[in-house]
Amino acid sequence: MRLERYTGTMYTNGVFSDIDDQIVCEDTFTLYVNNTQLLKMVASDDHLRELGAGFVICSHIADHIQNVTVCDDRIYVDAEVTGDFQEILESSGGAANHGTPRRVRSDQRVKPEKIFEVRSAIQSDAWLKTGALHASVLFYNGELAIRCEDIGRHNTVDKVVGHAVLNKLPLSDCIIGCTGRQPSGMVGKVANAGIPIIVSRAASTDRGIATAEETGITLVCFAREGRFTIYTHPERIIGSDGSGG
Amino acid sequence: MRLERYTGTMYTNGVFSDIDDQIVCEDTFTLYVNNTQLLKMVASDDHLRELGAGFVICSHIADHIQNVTVCDDRIYVDAEVTGDFQEILESSGGAANHGTPRRVRSDQRVKPEKIFEVRSAIQSDAWLKTGALHASVLFYNGELAIRCEDIGRHNTVDKVVGHAVLNKLPLSDCIIGCTGRQPSGMVGKVANAGIPIIVSRAASTDRGIATAEETGITLVCFAREGRFTIYTHPERIIGSDGSGG
Repeated sequence: MRLERYTGTMYTNGVFSDIDDQIVCEDTFTLYVNNTQLLKMVASDDHLRELGAGFVICSHIADHIQNVTVCDDRIYVDAEVTGDFQEILESSGGAANHGTPRRVRSDQRVKPEKIFEVRSAIQSDAWLKTGALHASVLFYNGELAIRCEDIGRHNTVDKVVGHAVLNKLPLSDCIIGCTGRQPSGMVGKVANAGIPIIVSRAASTDRGIATAEETGITLVCFAREGRFTIYTHPERIIGSDGSGG
Repeated sequence: MRLERYTGTMYTNGVFSDIDDQIVCEDTFTLYVNNTQLLKMVASDDHLRELGAGFVICSHIADHIQNVTVCDDRIYVDAEVTGDFQEILESSGGAANHGTPRRVRSDQRVKPEKIFEVRSAIQSDAWLKTGALHASVLFYNGELAIRCEDIGRHNTVDKVVGHAVLNKLPLSDCIIGCTGRQPSGMVGKVANAGIPIIVSRAASTDRGIATAEETGITLVCFAREGRFTIYTHPERIIGSDGSGG
């Protein structure tokens, strides 16, 4: 994650002073699928193979990735294309397949404590330093597998999914944690990846909730100190049926 | 701004309970420029004429708007197209013109107190209720002209700029205030609109700062209780040169 120093003028209670600030960097990459240019993405310059692999899976362009190579600012993904990709602009976030997301199948169940563990893992130094990043984490079999940061909320999901795909982690045994809001575009990405549980620090929208309901995702929002809200499929959170676990 | 009630399951310190939540709604609109379909946008369902007009101006597709009509989920903008629109995916935010944004010309200067007034005006009930909205405000001649909210950060900029354009407010006498971060895509929109001062509660990126520098925008970030940081063109903030105003 590239950060730069930049001198700004700070005003504090009537006094102007020079400050030396940490600024997050923004890069542009072009994504090629089977050597055809698909789109340009503004993103942070790490985990680029994961970004490409994850974008293709999360957009349901393909079910499997054959190869990903990165050359300068170009990301090349080779994959057998299965979905028909219909580009749509998402609410404050990238293009995605406008088709119906896939249904998630998973028997995974977790204790409430795991939700807080996922939520805590989202935090990072770079986020605290710059205040300008989003992050997603992927838990596999109950353990933190990866954390990815990016200036783009959607990119963080693509990156952690790409990590799982490139490392052949079964996504139905994963949980994703996100700093960002969960409109339908974000939930749809996770559904296409086949991850059954989303933990977000932030809110969802009506269509985000509807997408989670229809695709079988357990959508947990507002995961904060000591509390969270389950909007859909609470059966995966142990104790939510009043049985006490 | 459409909100819906939704029943969720809340977990608080070991106890599960049902709650009735306010959820923000997400809609999809198709933008036509001179009767040609340009793109689909996920947005909140208010200020749609403003959204269409503002998008066309902020993307530098045209310099003037002739007419905007909204029919169901379709926004039709008539305008003499001047720029060549090259779509690019923005960091967690819509498509924008990849061309160089225009240079802003304005003699506007403001006192530090005005920055806090702009920042205070950003807050809204819907934002507090749902935690899932962005907002932008437009000040014209020092007074609040409009506040627009949307699930999409970029849409809020388009909407307030659209308001100014449809009401013929001279944009060089305006200030824009935003809840959201300011990467190059956001700053570029404001530059294309010709607004000289951006006040954001949040951070920028390296390219966001570079775009503000090059286009002549005064970029003020982290506008919070009693403080803010000026990254570029501080000459528009009275007293920032140490003269004491």
